[in-house]
Amino acid sequence: MVNTCQSCESCEGGHENYCSKIIFTYNSHDRDGTVTYGGYSDMVVVNERFVIRFPDGMPLDRGAPLLCAGITVYNPMKHHGLNEAGKHIGVVGLGGLGHVAVKFAKAFGMRVTVISTSPGKREEAMETLGADAFVVSGDANQMKAAKGTMDGIMNTASASMSMYAYLALLKPQGKMILLGLPEKPLQISAFSLVTGGKTLAGSCMGSIRDTQEMMDFAAKHGLAADIELIGTEEVNEAMERLAKGEVRYRFVIDIGNTLNAASLGSSPVPAL
Amino acid sequence: MVNTCQSCESCEGGHENYCSKIIFTYNSHDRDGTVTYGGYSDMVVVNERFVIRFPDGMPLDRGAPLLCAGITVYNPMKHHGLNEAGKHIGVVGLGGLGHVAVKFAKAFGMRVTVISTSPGKREEAMETLGADAFVVSGDANQMKAAKGTMDGIMNTASASMSMYAYLALLKPQGKMILLGLPEKPLQISAFSLVTGGKTLAGSCMGSIRDTQEMMDFAAKHGLAADIELIGTEEVNEAMERLAKGEVRYRFVIDIGNTLNAASLGSSPVPAL
Repeated sequence: MVNTCQSCESCEGGHENYCSKIIFTYNSHDRDGTVTYGGYSDMVVVNERFVIRFPDGMPLDRGAPLLCAGITVYNPMKHHGLNEAGKHIGVVGLGGLGHVAVKFAKAFGMRVTVISTSPGKREEAMETLGADAFVVSGDANQMKAAKGTMDGIMNTASASMSMYAYLALLKPQGKMILLGLPEKPLQISAFSLVTGGKTLAGSCMGSIRDTQEMMDFAAKHGLAADIELIGTEEVNEAMERLAKGEVRYRFVIDIGNTLNAASLGSSPVPAL
Repeated sequence: MVNTCQSCESCEGGHENYCSKIIFTYNSHDRDGTVTYGGYSDMVVVNERFVIRFPDGMPLDRGAPLLCAGITVYNPMKHHGLNEAGKHIGVVGLGGLGHVAVKFAKAFGMRVTVISTSPGKREEAMETLGADAFVVSGDANQMKAAKGTMDGIMNTASASMSMYAYLALLKPQGKMILLGLPEKPLQISAFSLVTGGKTLAGSCMGSIRDTQEMMDFAAKHGLAADIELIGTEEVNEAMERLAKGEVRYRFVIDIGNTLNAASLGSSPVPAL
């Protein structure tokens, strides 16, 4: 986001990410009516309250996705009190959001179980990202063994899914955080939530204050997104690979070095 | 409940109402294998940790339903931080749970809006129970006017309902507490929860400590359930009226004065 109304209950309560007049970084209408283009340019003008300081040692390219994926997972972990050493968290889906959820949870000292539809992701979950356990969601025995063991679940899946088996993984009073936006409504049995006093909560980004805190925390723990850096000339190919789920885990476009060179042929800008 | 395992994470954390080995007051199996019959008798033996002291001035008959309906609404109001003066709470459904939800919320100093399918309940909601506002859920204009105004909603409905319009009543970061158990799954749009950072949480009774606190709070505020006191000989008729929703708001059976007289004809027991 690059601006909000700065005067509503959400803004004044320090949760400006839920302001109904939020102006998103891109594909949003700014106050002067122009469309915002976010980072797809070599300059961007934003309100000073919406600027984040990049901590020393945080690489620009691997840090950039934290401003969306990072805060999206960090904020609900903190807001819902899941970020405590020793707590057990499940991460559903190992993509752009899921892989940073694993990294933040491990940095908080939590036990992390990745839950995935793809048995082939076990190695990257456990060996590359450092998850403690891996559960194949389609394997009833594995799901049963993990039943009632988790304090929280970060659900990054954007496909519709039956929630019954996932909610069963939670301990009493456990919390599932919804971060994806499946198109079809979720089917939720009230029984799944009521009998164990469980919570299903949505979450969307975080405040600027929490985003700065998240960036500082990430830098301190040497944590950043796993990315593939591309030039502007590779954008179309990247979109195709994105649709096939072929990126580990975010594409970052090197605008500084390739935007002007590719499209304008004008004077060079300083490298990222 | 009359007992739990007293050693699991829920019990040790002071949330024994979520113990997986909970023994309910009635229709449950006690440790010795016998079936529990709860209050349908003139004596009941329970573990000493599961006894509640009736505060001075709390009538036995009007206080009895608080041990279920009272704690069921008090616990999530407290646990989810809704019980603050000035906060706005919606109460969906005006029955056994709903009417005490209105009373507790008013005692906490909250603004209360009753949301009901029955326009005819306006007078009892506002004049008898003291709600501040009344919204007919089938009236799109009334629902629209109340949009985004509530910090929390106590959803006591046990019929399946479309949740979209109800979740829209919540402010950003608002919380809907599910207390009823509709048979069919609820249809929840992830968008409804994610974009406003909203929470849908189930809740079931409360701990013994919270139940005692609730009873003391109720006595202090002169608050009790609205009931109709019946004898054991009226139970069948009461069941029929209950099925038709014809009770305001709970039947209480005067076991002490009518159980032995009706079924046993033996020596009288002290009156309630």
